[in-house]
Amino acid sequence: MTYELFYWPGIPGRGEFVRLAFEATGTAYRDVCREEGTGEMFRLMDAAGINTPSFAPPILRDGDVIVGQAALILHFLGPRLGLVPENEMLRFWTHQIQLTIVDFVAEIHDTHHPVGGDFYYEEQKREALRRAGTFRNSRLPKFFGWFESIIKRNASGWLVGDEMSYVDLSLFLLVEGLTYGFPKTVAKAMPDYPLIASVHDMVAALPRIATYLKSTRRQAFNEDGIFRFYPELEDA
Amino acid sequence: MTYELFYWPGIPGRGEFVRLAFEATGTAYRDVCREEGTGEMFRLMDAAGINTPSFAPPILRDGDVIVGQAALILHFLGPRLGLVPENEMLRFWTHQIQLTIVDFVAEIHDTHHPVGGDFYYEEQKREALRRAGTFRNSRLPKFFGWFESIIKRNASGWLVGDEMSYVDLSLFLLVEGLTYGFPKTVAKAMPDYPLIASVHDMVAALPRIATYLKSTRRQAFNEDGIFRFYPELEDA
Repeated sequence: MTYELFYWPGIPGRGEFVRLAFEATGTAYRDVCREEGTGEMFRLMDAAGINTPSFAPPILRDGDVIVGQAALILHFLGPRLGLVPENEMLRFWTHQIQLTIVDFVAEIHDTHHPVGGDFYYEEQKREALRRAGTFRNSRLPKFFGWFESIIKRNASGWLVGDEMSYVDLSLFLLVEGLTYGFPKTVAKAMPDYPLIASVHDMVAALPRIATYLKSTRRQAFNEDGIFRFYPELEDA
Repeated sequence: MTYELFYWPGIPGRGEFVRLAFEATGTAYRDVCREEGTGEMFRLMDAAGINTPSFAPPILRDGDVIVGQAALILHFLGPRLGLVPENEMLRFWTHQIQLTIVDFVAEIHDTHHPVGGDFYYEEQKREALRRAGTFRNSRLPKFFGWFESIIKRNASGWLVGDEMSYVDLSLFLLVEGLTYGFPKTVAKAMPDYPLIASVHDMVAALPRIATYLKSTRRQAFNEDGIFRFYPELEDA
């Protein structure tokens, strides 16, 4: 059965963490909403016969199994795609890193939406300017410092174990997205995080990922997504 | 080996989700930072010999195993404490519900800290008034509606399976905390969520939980925690 991914079309968003796992391993999957629209996705969140209705996308369907929450989808897929170590406690640790990435992503989103999703960015720009300052000066260095220290402790060059795992792919996406949204901040910061930069570059150099990045399956970052480029949020 | 919980002393916070699992099952645990201060907690996050340094508390130590992230700690403890069904996919589903609770808790926290933790509430009160309005009118009903629908689909009266699981304890804490922070909002809303109210009341009636709530082990909600009572955030 081909894996089916359900996510908002038009943005990479949180669905991209899952796409990268499929793409890096050459795993067949359908990006359903891009092919067919969001009808089935909403049915999975709400219909009467669905026993495990996810609160929000991304949602993965694997035959009868429906799983929501990006980090849980990766925890589910990791062993199946060979993107996590065999050891159970290392799988927990990998999942813990991904959950911390989830927290970071929520904070990245809130740089442009500190008041919440009910208002457009332009309606909360004053609040966003303040929040983005805190993010750039305090939160981004704290999260990046943590990732860097984990790679350093592990000593293989990857975040966990001896080989690439799904959290390395997610860290790659963080660097890509933040470089899009906060180019000057990231350019200035990256020399402090050589091990993160190395993971990013190793992932980018994977032949399957390099092919994916040039394909039409890859959607560009834009100002409807999590990673947005509003120049004023770097200058505040 | 007695389980050891590490969390900020002085607030229930995210540590309370873990404490309730121990308390409901009569499991021996040490609330280390309340006994000894935060020295060992910081060591677990930062020391050279720690291979899995958590980004933030709560942190659980079980012998050689160190686990961070409240939802992951519960996913780890669930089978050990008998607080999750046997079926693997139901365990995933229970974890997915807890991850959604984590998202909700982050939004609850941000009602009083929309600009972030670098500023006191008083320094971001204007932003908080706006965010709290969105939370009360839009986000709280969306999350509560989802919990209600899950209990309804499950039909046992609990969120998952035939018996109480750790997510029921967490839902109890959400209702308690939100009743503290937004008493008028919750009083007005609860008639729309009779199944949530029932889970809350069943948990509160457990003899061990009733005993815990009256004990000194239970810390009161206060204005240093996640659930804070600022009357103006209900009236904005």
